[in-house]
Amino acid sequence: MIGKPLILVTNDDGVYAPGLRYLAEAMRSIGRPVIVAPERDNSAVSHSLTMDRPLRVKKIEADVYAIDGTPTDCVTIAVSKILGERPALVASGINPGANLGDDISYSGTVSAAIEATMLGFPAFAVSLAASDSFAFDAAAGFAGQVARDILTRGLPRDTLLNVNVPAGAAEAIRGVRFTRQGRRIYEGAIKETSDPWGRRHYWIGGGTPSWDSGDDTDACAVLAGYVSITPLHLDLTNHEALALLRRDWSPAVG
Amino acid sequence: MIGKPLILVTNDDGVYAPGLRYLAEAMRSIGRPVIVAPERDNSAVSHSLTMDRPLRVKKIEADVYAIDGTPTDCVTIAVSKILGERPALVASGINPGANLGDDISYSGTVSAAIEATMLGFPAFAVSLAASDSFAFDAAAGFAGQVARDILTRGLPRDTLLNVNVPAGAAEAIRGVRFTRQGRRIYEGAIKETSDPWGRRHYWIGGGTPSWDSGDDTDACAVLAGYVSITPLHLDLTNHEALALLRRDWSPAVG
Repeated sequence: MIGKPLILVTNDDGVYAPGLRYLAEAMRSIGRPVIVAPERDNSAVSHSLTMDRPLRVKKIEADVYAIDGTPTDCVTIAVSKILGERPALVASGINPGANLGDDISYSGTVSAAIEATMLGFPAFAVSLAASDSFAFDAAAGFAGQVARDILTRGLPRDTLLNVNVPAGAAEAIRGVRFTRQGRRIYEGAIKETSDPWGRRHYWIGGGTPSWDSGDDTDACAVLAGYVSITPLHLDLTNHEALALLRRDWSPAVG
Repeated sequence: MIGKPLILVTNDDGVYAPGLRYLAEAMRSIGRPVIVAPERDNSAVSHSLTMDRPLRVKKIEADVYAIDGTPTDCVTIAVSKILGERPALVASGINPGANLGDDISYSGTVSAAIEATMLGFPAFAVSLAASDSFAFDAAAGFAGQVARDILTRGLPRDTLLNVNVPAGAAEAIRGVRFTRQGRRIYEGAIKETSDPWGRRHYWIGGGTPSWDSGDDTDACAVLAGYVSITPLHLDLTNHEALALLRRDWSPAVG
């Protein structure tokens, strides 16, 4: 009998975050989940990599490890130094809060899946699009379905899935839509405040983002009550613009 | 007479980094550079955004500001709170070290230009592909040329330029190539070390990356002695994979 597939589970909220444990439980019916996650909350760290200090791995319990670093650190150290074999899948989440449109770029949750993809492993990130009252059951159920689909069908080369599940019970979710990454319309939410010495400070955050209106976008699907699954890839090149630059810009000699 | 165009200049190495000052000087012949940069070194912070504490802006000298945050923080606070008018261009760099292929994803230098693009401003990042002995003159010269081209011709929507300049004198550079983002071949450079109490730690970094062999890539151009200019965009969607998922995957109901 062949052993259960090894599944690396990580997140950006830290090893004690409830969403992580829901995700690991969902993976248990499919394979053997091993958690390697940041010791502390690493939200909005994006694809940060820690290179200016050594990182420590703590074994918390069987198949659960914490690292004093970022989600990207966790993935790279897990596959090189902890797991001992190649994972069949890397799952990141469940993030309490959506990762949609431009905001993907800031997300540690999605970056962990990007790092796994760079290293050649099938990967997905899963987020619960709620703003409070995080009930992870439905999102965990969908994460299990996505994991099974990836293990059965595989993923295109250099491609990961970014999954966002609407808030609410599984029965209330209208289905699944495969979507493109939308654009967030900027509104510059920065609060001005002052320190005890009266010096002005700026606090980034808050506000309600607005989205472009494309009905095939990730944000639109979630707002309409669907699970959004967006295939993301590693190539940031704007290939149309590349053709245009080669044709029109003067200094080209290549 | 119309005033000189306002150019926001930032980086990830901090406000006192020499590459930043070279870039600002290069922009001075084209417009009015205003520096808003991190107080300290923020290399490899990627697109991190600081939301868990307020940020302080220090005026260092005329048109030079430091923020105790990331490159992304600097761009968003500069355009909302410091500049007072919309910049005509955002320039990030000059990074001492290349930003090529997958490594773009970790780069604070490139992320600053990505943030500017999200906010709707033309932007470019410039890096000097040297490993020591950073002579910024040639890179600053090319940065000036790129800035002029962007201001004259504009950039495609949601697109920034990632510029890498080979080490050496301007005369030794063979020309400019418009390139696609290459792939780095992973080699898992992690050094094992131990703390004073004998506990094992891992230090990420070092090693020599290898690259895919495509001769139209950023890395290939720089290795061949050319300046590489890669147009990057904000859309991470793998559109081919999206069509495939919609056709082949079972749960689609959208």
